[in-house]
Amino acid sequence: MPIEIPDVVIDRLPLYYRLLSRLEQEGRAVISSQELGEELGVTPAQIRKDLSYFGRFGKQGRGYSVVRLAEELRFILGLDRRWRVVVVGIGRLGRALSSYPGFEGQGFDIVGRYDSSPGIIGTTLDGNTILNAADLEADLRKTPVDIGIVAVTADAAQDVADTLVRGGVRAVLNYTPARVQVPVGVELKHINPVLFLQSMTYHLKLRQRDRVARAD
Amino acid sequence: MPIEIPDVVIDRLPLYYRLLSRLEQEGRAVISSQELGEELGVTPAQIRKDLSYFGRFGKQGRGYSVVRLAEELRFILGLDRRWRVVVVGIGRLGRALSSYPGFEGQGFDIVGRYDSSPGIIGTTLDGNTILNAADLEADLRKTPVDIGIVAVTADAAQDVADTLVRGGVRAVLNYTPARVQVPVGVELKHINPVLFLQSMTYHLKLRQRDRVARAD
Repeated sequence: MPIEIPDVVIDRLPLYYRLLSRLEQEGRAVISSQELGEELGVTPAQIRKDLSYFGRFGKQGRGYSVVRLAEELRFILGLDRRWRVVVVGIGRLGRALSSYPGFEGQGFDIVGRYDSSPGIIGTTLDGNTILNAADLEADLRKTPVDIGIVAVTADAAQDVADTLVRGGVRAVLNYTPARVQVPVGVELKHINPVLFLQSMTYHLKLRQRDRVARAD
Repeated sequence: MPIEIPDVVIDRLPLYYRLLSRLEQEGRAVISSQELGEELGVTPAQIRKDLSYFGRFGKQGRGYSVVRLAEELRFILGLDRRWRVVVVGIGRLGRALSSYPGFEGQGFDIVGRYDSSPGIIGTTLDGNTILNAADLEADLRKTPVDIGIVAVTADAAQDVADTLVRGGVRAVLNYTPARVQVPVGVELKHINPVLFLQSMTYHLKLRQRDRVARAD
């Protein structure tokens, strides 16, 4: 029975992994929690605590082996295998996601692109035929898929998520501003740029208030 | 001098705000930290701790006033004013962002869309003329902008971020998979779907390991 690891720690692991992959490519052998912390903007104590959930990676006073830590993170995050992904909704956003260069070499294979618009179904995008969203559930039952990316309009988001779940998909990445619900046991993440902008405007506003206060 | 509030708390505030806006629209008067926690997937203790950074919103045992808390969050997050945004890079992703429905009514005005490709400059997108990225810095100096969204190719990301910063932009949202650096005092957020997928595959893999272990 694994220990329950906080989601906020899980969400940081891809950042660790990305940094370690880069260091690995640069040929670095060892990195300290101090340096990891500086690169990632967290304290060395936080780094040590985060990584301690997954066993003992570092030797006291000698830092972490870059190769070993990267390899462990690859295993922990499931990046030592390939994941099958479908994108549903091939409007502007779906088109952008279908060709997102960051998926390359990360183990994520987009195996299906679906849309419900008659003008889009059957057309090709980068050599891939756009499939009919009405066939999605049947297709998923025939050939299982791990992850579904929802890039339809907000009002269709819940329907698409339901279809993905009925078809056996166990992870849903929702790109619409709509609130989507999935059953327990299905992973759900939202990417909503408004939430990112809002946490930046917090800081912008704070700084403007500081300036006003100093000018008084 | 305001207290230093952890970034992880700031990043949760837009989620609180989104929920409270919805409750406000539904006409709810009061909500308990228990219910807020259930809706947001955090503990009631965490809710009380997060909100305590910003003053005393709730009355012991009586819950939070939905209207008052929403109003306070709107002020704290700087959503009581409008923010000027430019999108740089009008490829597939930039097109998607330019028409993202979630910006509507949230105080974010896209005031400029820039590209460097001669085939795109001067064309229109939803009635807006695509401007020349070569003019970006001069335009920003003439008419200040708060936030820049970087949706160019990865190899151009740092150049665009530098131009935005030289033009006085103080918040950069990087949509490319590239690592981008900005000076101290400039806010920076990255939206990289790979990082979201990787924290979901952690859970998918964990569940598969559990199933294998039970089957043994």
